Amino acid sequence: MRTNSERESFKPGNMLYPVPAVMVSVKKEGEKPNIITIAWAGTVCSDPPMVSISVRKSRYSHEILKETGEFVINLVNEDLNFACDFCGVKSGRDTDKFKEMKLHETVSKEVKAPGIAESPVNIECKVEQVIELGTHDMFIARVVAVSVSKDYMDENGRLDLKRASLVAYSHGEYMKLGKKLGTFGYSVRKNKNNKKKRNK
Amino acid sequence: MRTNSERESFKPGNMLYPVPAVMVSVKKEGEKPNIITIAWAGTVCSDPPMVSISVRKSRYSHEILKETGEFVINLVNEDLNFACDFCGVKSGRDTDKFKEMKLHETVSKEVKAPGIAESPVNIECKVEQVIELGTHDMFIARVVAVSVSKDYMDENGRLDLKRASLVAYSHGEYMKLGKKLGTFGYSVRKNKNNKKKRNK
Repeated sequence: MRTNSERESFKPGNMLYPVPAVMVSVKKEGEKPNIITIAWAGTVCSDPPMVSISVRKSRYSHEILKETGEFVINLVNEDLNFACDFCGVKSGRDTDKFKEMKLHETVSKEVKAPGIAESPVNIECKVEQVIELGTHDMFIARVVAVSVSKDYMDENGRLDLKRASLVAYSHGEYMKLGKKLGTFGYSVRKNKNNKKKRNK
Repeated sequence: MRTNSERESFKPGNMLYPVPAVMVSVKKEGEKPNIITIAWAGTVCSDPPMVSISVRKSRYSHEILKETGEFVINLVNEDLNFACDFCGVKSGRDTDKFKEMKLHETVSKEVKAPGIAESPVNIECKVEQVIELGTHDMFIARVVAVSVSKDYMDENGRLDLKRASLVAYSHGEYMKLGKKLGTFGYSVRKNKNNKKKRNK
């Protein structure tokens, strides 16, 4: 066992990175839709497919989420990054974010909230549980529909998400995904390429 | 509102990307520690700092997590990526992953599970709730201690996580974080650099 002399202790904090920075769209009946950027988001179950997003109680969208139980997660690529940051800083109480950022709505299949047409992937979700944790409430939701921009389908009609230039959020910075290091399971597949990677 | 003609409908599924691919270390008393790679992980609350990891019931580490209620999240950088993939594919039932991947243990401050010395950031966690969702159980946990490798501190003693070359997981692929697109709040800060980014 190594000594810990090369490490520094930090106070307990939010240090799990990279995380996604996704744009979540919501809509209350009779009102304009809103967009809130969420970094405290992730997949929480494979089958049924489920996600969670955590939202501060004070946020404008928190009330809409509580009331409607529906939202759309819109993945963020390089072109959307400026709008993503803007939607995380400004409040929907006094800003029409779709208009301000020149974004277009898509018609969702299973929920009333629209998706963002400029986003590579729209994930429609229905809330199943809300868990109060402290500053944030966690909305655990089931994925009920997914739509993908045809720009990211390859010649065989398969989704190639690499083409989308997705963005991750890491310790206060937005970073574009860069070099591919491997595909799931590459460490145990037997081929030359593998050994090279391991011994590098 | 745009038509949805440029989009393709997918069946509901796990499409929230990029996500972290973190190595989670656990330890049952009297046994060797184990490492399990988790992509269904994220931050769920800012204050108190809380995270969640979702683990299949069939996994070796699931039982240990249930029994001990403790784990360490180890962030993954380029050098650790091969081990990260390996620890997600192999089972701790028949593999000593620390030994096999030549990894070293750190002594944790608040939990019995060791951290991984080669990881840039070790996040010690104590489970507060377990929620059964389907294939996966979600472990919601409080961050109780954090340690960071001194390699990633800048000349002012501040953490510069960019230096760590962290890895994200996106639709079956491990990708290194690449170009920085901005820092949180850049869309509303007034400077020339900003406008350039927006009009690009």
